[in-house]
Amino acid sequence: MTTIGVIGGTGGQGFGIALRFAQVGENVIIGSRTIDKALAAVEKAKELLGDIPNIQAATNPEAAKAADVLVLTVPLAAQRDILLSIKEGAAGKPLLDATGPLESCIGGSATRYIDLPEGSAAERSQSILPDAKVICAFNTISQSWWLQLDEPIDCDCLISGNDEDAKAFVTPLIEKIPGIKVVDCGKLERARIIEKITPLLIGLNIKNKCQFGGIRITGLDKGRA
Amino acid sequence: MTTIGVIGGTGGQGFGIALRFAQVGENVIIGSRTIDKALAAVEKAKELLGDIPNIQAATNPEAAKAADVLVLTVPLAAQRDILLSIKEGAAGKPLLDATGPLESCIGGSATRYIDLPEGSAAERSQSILPDAKVICAFNTISQSWWLQLDEPIDCDCLISGNDEDAKAFVTPLIEKIPGIKVVDCGKLERARIIEKITPLLIGLNIKNKCQFGGIRITGLDKGRA
Repeated sequence: MTTIGVIGGTGGQGFGIALRFAQVGENVIIGSRTIDKALAAVEKAKELLGDIPNIQAATNPEAAKAADVLVLTVPLAAQRDILLSIKEGAAGKPLLDATGPLESCIGGSATRYIDLPEGSAAERSQSILPDAKVICAFNTISQSWWLQLDEPIDCDCLISGNDEDAKAFVTPLIEKIPGIKVVDCGKLERARIIEKITPLLIGLNIKNKCQFGGIRITGLDKGRA
Repeated sequence: MTTIGVIGGTGGQGFGIALRFAQVGENVIIGSRTIDKALAAVEKAKELLGDIPNIQAATNPEAAKAADVLVLTVPLAAQRDILLSIKEGAAGKPLLDATGPLESCIGGSATRYIDLPEGSAAERSQSILPDAKVICAFNTISQSWWLQLDEPIDCDCLISGNDEDAKAFVTPLIEKIPGIKVVDCGKLERARIIEKITPLLIGLNIKNKCQFGGIRITGLDKGRA
């Protein structure tokens, strides 16, 4: 069993990811800036999943220390401070980074991306925490999917990262969640493209009055040598 | 029956698109800079499809004049000159723009995009030909799929454009090609994201030793009001 620390696990996306991993039997720690918020989220999780023992509350730094794998689901504006707060615990561990560089973080539209000096939010995380094994992940799966607990998620999870072992470790872990297929897109800098798919999907959701827009990659096993 | 002029129709992608539209019974004109190259492509098309009357050769400017809908499949370096050469014929017509801003056009890797001052190649086309109804299209469907004539294409065609009538006109036309579903992503500026998916897919093809990487959008009809 793997212990997964969800840093920023009280927001919709992080909470949904925490629920999904708890549901498939992994140890989950919901991290937050304050223990009270984390405890409240765990209470809510137990209402939804039943009184299961494999979901706990902690501050972000404690969650990072106790976990084997970290998930980062925080707004871009909070990314730097929260990452610095977990520096010690995150060292050497896979960190699944869902941060999105949406224009909404500077008061614009969530259907547009902003260009970051580091190239992508995931590369920004890596520059803040050089000792973590940052993997861009979850950017193309909407919050609504995570919270739709009774249904398989009809989306691929595009990942990218520089540590091949870390990607190999998290791939079967993520694929325990029903429906999800992981597609390894290569080195971390691929996050420059992956993260831009989020605002495309948000725009499609608005246009189609839905909340479940996602993507599947096709054709990768067709005609292989 | 619609007459489709494929501008730059002798390269692999344009030739494949021409074959697919001819196959479903549309009138196709393969355009090229020289009539000889266009005639050679039509000969090759007839070898592949049989001696059908609905595929013809023309220079790019003549193809643009004679067509109802244009398809642009040219390298970025040739985009401006070729568009200026078809200015007269393209006015007022839908122009399906497959141009990709790949780093390979400046001697780099086809797995990386370059940032264009106009935001995207499709917006660049629109700035060069303000009277054409430019629609970003075909960027997420590989050349190999177009040329795989005996199989439905397992890809969505992401489009974007500012003229709603033009998009409504081309959508059923593109969907005549077996397998393809058109997903309207909104205004032309969405091309800034759509065009960047091409280098992601090229990278996935290289990584997976295949040539058919594509995408499908999921979830847009789930839980709609």
